[in-house]
Amino acid sequence: MQLKKYRNKAQSFLVEGAKSVLELLTSGYEVTHIIGSPSFFRDNADITAKFDSIQQIASEKELNRISALKNNSIVLAVAKYRSVDTFKLEKDELCIALDRIRDPGNLGTIIRTADWYGINKLLCSTDCADFYNPKTIQSSMGSFTRVQAYYTNLLEYLEGQRVLGAVMEGDSVHQINFSQGGIILIGNEAQGISNDLGSVVTQWISIPKYGSAESLNAAVATAVICDNIRRNNDQ
Amino acid sequence: MQLKKYRNKAQSFLVEGAKSVLELLTSGYEVTHIIGSPSFFRDNADITAKFDSIQQIASEKELNRISALKNNSIVLAVAKYRSVDTFKLEKDELCIALDRIRDPGNLGTIIRTADWYGINKLLCSTDCADFYNPKTIQSSMGSFTRVQAYYTNLLEYLEGQRVLGAVMEGDSVHQINFSQGGIILIGNEAQGISNDLGSVVTQWISIPKYGSAESLNAAVATAVICDNIRRNNDQ
Repeated sequence: MQLKKYRNKAQSFLVEGAKSVLELLTSGYEVTHIIGSPSFFRDNADITAKFDSIQQIASEKELNRISALKNNSIVLAVAKYRSVDTFKLEKDELCIALDRIRDPGNLGTIIRTADWYGINKLLCSTDCADFYNPKTIQSSMGSFTRVQAYYTNLLEYLEGQRVLGAVMEGDSVHQINFSQGGIILIGNEAQGISNDLGSVVTQWISIPKYGSAESLNAAVATAVICDNIRRNNDQ
Repeated sequence: MQLKKYRNKAQSFLVEGAKSVLELLTSGYEVTHIIGSPSFFRDNADITAKFDSIQQIASEKELNRISALKNNSIVLAVAKYRSVDTFKLEKDELCIALDRIRDPGNLGTIIRTADWYGINKLLCSTDCADFYNPKTIQSSMGSFTRVQAYYTNLLEYLEGQRVLGAVMEGDSVHQINFSQGGIILIGNEAQGISNDLGSVVTQWISIPKYGSAESLNAAVATAVICDNIRRNNDQ
């Protein structure tokens, strides 16, 4: 489950920790295994009861051994992939497109951030980190149940759409108007937005800098942009 | 160098990757070792020349083997701790205080974010992640050279200061006025701000939520708060 090829073969992924597993159990995902400590099942009987047939009780020591995380001795679960075959934006809907975001932790944090800002759809270049990587699932803190990711050729998809591209020199996000919705494009952690994709950006935006750092972390930049767009629309 | 007790004994820490090492070499830190590939020294001769006596050339294979990072085959350096013995805020200065931020990656991203927003001082509870942890240094992306962290008993220090505490229910950061400076207090990743410290908070603030995630990542929240404070002061 920690390797993409085995996940793809089983069309299944791993979810760890009480918070994430509880979110999983109350989502639409098909869960196939829950392995938890006696106390997890006791404390969450209201939610776990209807998953009786797929439950296995394990000791904390056993859980620690099979866990991909450092300190998970509570519960882990396995669920089936949910396929995202089509992608369609509604009128005025806001969405985030990710160009080669490689770090699964960053991807998970972006999923969590999108969920906070009411954005439920991500477009990902095919070479982005995997949505179902255990580190992505973990850092999304349960938001993977509410945000869907569509992996595609971004260039083809973004052509003709309203696309905000985040760069170092662009219109300040403190001032932009983006009330009609569209797509916020976030580039690779080290290289930013690829030249190819630059050609479909309809407005370049940037986050005002007040100090000396050369750039911001990709998930941090995503959050600041989303916050400003929501704030500007409120005013 | 990957373990705090050995770092403390040697009063030295590890810096990896071309960008971070180049920032280190042009900072005030005392550098004791630079181990790099032939191409690193060739490409950066203008900066590395004056460190001639402490240079060692290594092959990419050797660098990969001694590196704490996954894909560093370019350069690493060792530098002496810089002591931060006193801490004083200037008039109208903005600073960030961290209550039990445990993840070194989060701490590094907060350091990078602070640097972006022109905040050069961090107050850290003594049980925060270590400023000199290799993962902190790495994720700060060179900003560790411009931001100093003072580890202290936060409760004693914050008493009587102007302290903004980030929580789920508080005044919206889209509206707060914080032009006189003061301290932004960020709580632990899972538990938030401790009860003790809550007693010294002078204003509770929160980031407006538009969707369903339960919370934001600590570094993400720090960035959104800093951005709003800077934006509000500009207006």
